[in-house]
Amino acid sequence: MTDKVIVALDAMGGDSAPDVVIQGAAIALQRFPQVEFIFFGVESRLKPLIDKLPALAGHCSIRHTDHFITGDAKPTTALRSGRQSSMRLALDSVANGEAHCAISAGNTGALMAMAKFAIKMLPGISRPAIAAMLPTRRGESVMLDLGANVECDAENLVQFALMGEVFARTVLGLARPTVGILNIGSEELKGNDAVRGAAARLRLPGVPIDFHGYIEGDEIGAGKVDVVVTDGFTGNVALKTAEGTAKLFSEFIRNAFASSFMAKIGYLFAKSSLGKLRERLDVRSYNGAVLLGLEGIAVKSHGSTDALGFANAIGVGVDMWINGFLDKIRDDIARMKALPESDEKPQAAAL
Amino acid sequence: MTDKVIVALDAMGGDSAPDVVIQGAAIALQRFPQVEFIFFGVESRLKPLIDKLPALAGHCSIRHTDHFITGDAKPTTALRSGRQSSMRLALDSVANGEAHCAISAGNTGALMAMAKFAIKMLPGISRPAIAAMLPTRRGESVMLDLGANVECDAENLVQFALMGEVFARTVLGLARPTVGILNIGSEELKGNDAVRGAAARLRLPGVPIDFHGYIEGDEIGAGKVDVVVTDGFTGNVALKTAEGTAKLFSEFIRNAFASSFMAKIGYLFAKSSLGKLRERLDVRSYNGAVLLGLEGIAVKSHGSTDALGFANAIGVGVDMWINGFLDKIRDDIARMKALPESDEKPQAAAL
Repeated sequence: MTDKVIVALDAMGGDSAPDVVIQGAAIALQRFPQVEFIFFGVESRLKPLIDKLPALAGHCSIRHTDHFITGDAKPTTALRSGRQSSMRLALDSVANGEAHCAISAGNTGALMAMAKFAIKMLPGISRPAIAAMLPTRRGESVMLDLGANVECDAENLVQFALMGEVFARTVLGLARPTVGILNIGSEELKGNDAVRGAAARLRLPGVPIDFHGYIEGDEIGAGKVDVVVTDGFTGNVALKTAEGTAKLFSEFIRNAFASSFMAKIGYLFAKSSLGKLRERLDVRSYNGAVLLGLEGIAVKSHGSTDALGFANAIGVGVDMWINGFLDKIRDDIARMKALPESDEKPQAAAL
Repeated sequence: MTDKVIVALDAMGGDSAPDVVIQGAAIALQRFPQVEFIFFGVESRLKPLIDKLPALAGHCSIRHTDHFITGDAKPTTALRSGRQSSMRLALDSVANGEAHCAISAGNTGALMAMAKFAIKMLPGISRPAIAAMLPTRRGESVMLDLGANVECDAENLVQFALMGEVFARTVLGLARPTVGILNIGSEELKGNDAVRGAAARLRLPGVPIDFHGYIEGDEIGAGKVDVVVTDGFTGNVALKTAEGTAKLFSEFIRNAFASSFMAKIGYLFAKSSLGKLRERLDVRSYNGAVLLGLEGIAVKSHGSTDALGFANAIGVGVDMWINGFLDKIRDDIARMKALPESDEKPQAAAL
């Protein structure tokens, strides 16, 4: 039974909890038959839903709690008064070794604060980062940080590069993912100290990373590298700008097809191909932002996702566990520690 | 003849100079018959091209110079040894009052450095910013800074807000443009000191700006505000990410239409509507990044644009002059100066 993976689920987190959580678990179980779930939440609400899904019922248990974290709770409040919440208990079960990973579709800020407090940081990592996958021309890439750290120094970015690289290996299944640091384009304006310092360090011989230097915003979608490293402010803006542009574009296309009788007929012919494209870009496939840097695995599902999306978030956590994410990170941290310090001085920008 | 607008053109800047510059001027002249052009560049190359366009020939003069700035020249080199370059002479003609605006499709870094040196900064503005227009659901918005300033403090952002607002009034023709500061989403992580300090100041009573607070990356494309204010690092990444996503999407759509016989037929029916969309999103319509904060008007055209795109860049400069951009900026700076200092302390982020 060494193969068993125990997944702790915050059954009360997200817009459509607990239904979506339970249905998502049932879907994930089809992909990962070795999984056992622990649902944390209000038993009287969970049990009837689970009883309707016999395949799931044999692979799960319920830990009752009446408390849960609301979507608008402040992280500090959640930390102080959420100790018996479904979210916190799920994280605790990872911290005490009972579960291998925890998944929640609840309040992001609360989840971050509680995960950092309950699970602790990996030795050698100073700050947690939020990572997620996004579609690119070549398939998918990982980007981090997406908002956990507004300001980052060079060392933070180096740690993000390490964590993102291991994440791409364990979840995207890439043997040797390429890593780039997001920067701005002009020759004259090669970014800030953090970006230049991190690049200098990642270029040192012996760094266990295939570092491709700087990439620009338009190269994210082009899939120029597998792992895009940036501070949480820029990463959050870039991710949301990409989402917003994709949404705008979809709307423009939809309007174009609705704009004339001929276009409507054209749509009917192209419908199946466009449907496949929609499937490929389905946000549910990219669900599951991960809190990296912790001594355990915690995944944040989008709050408004459906069962399929939640199942994908579970899949991210399970993949990380099965593929030894934490051990690989520890190995890489040790290898980085053994390297000499960079003596390259970052150069001042010309302007 | 008070209506005459004198436009200085760097005839040697850009990938297809001088042809595109001269053809672009001819197109712009149709829209702005009151314009007189001064072409700075190699006379023996310019004259034959101008002679072929009789309508233009009567509205322009040539200032010969053999020197020009190459695309890969460093700004410092351009400053030191480019004093007789076509780009520099065009900027000088704005500085000495001979021309009302200068347009160049040449090297951005060199243009910024030389413009700052030759034209000088507006009193009260500490740093220049690069602004440009981009398409949104509601029409178009202005975003700045797009890369001139990697790191910005609150006061810089406030000045960008002022300049962007006046730019939107004079070029987009909006009576009272709305302004937002780009920030990240989570309640818990409300950005850095610069962003919070600028927002506090822009919320003061008496500020001559319709300030809408923070916006997130996905709200740029949604057109939530007319003017998006951000530092040059974030702005550059956001703009390029949007461009990259749009490109990726176009490619996905193109592939979807090519993926089956049915889809190809669908394309034929929808072609005209999709063509109109392409027109609406034509990058040439959004050509013309402006260097704001100077005591004169300088516009950067994309280096690889065609004649229509270059004509649009000329249009931006002419619109700014006709609509009194510089006077309006001076008015607003004076009004801001008259306000008391903000006593709102930016709050620390909760995480």
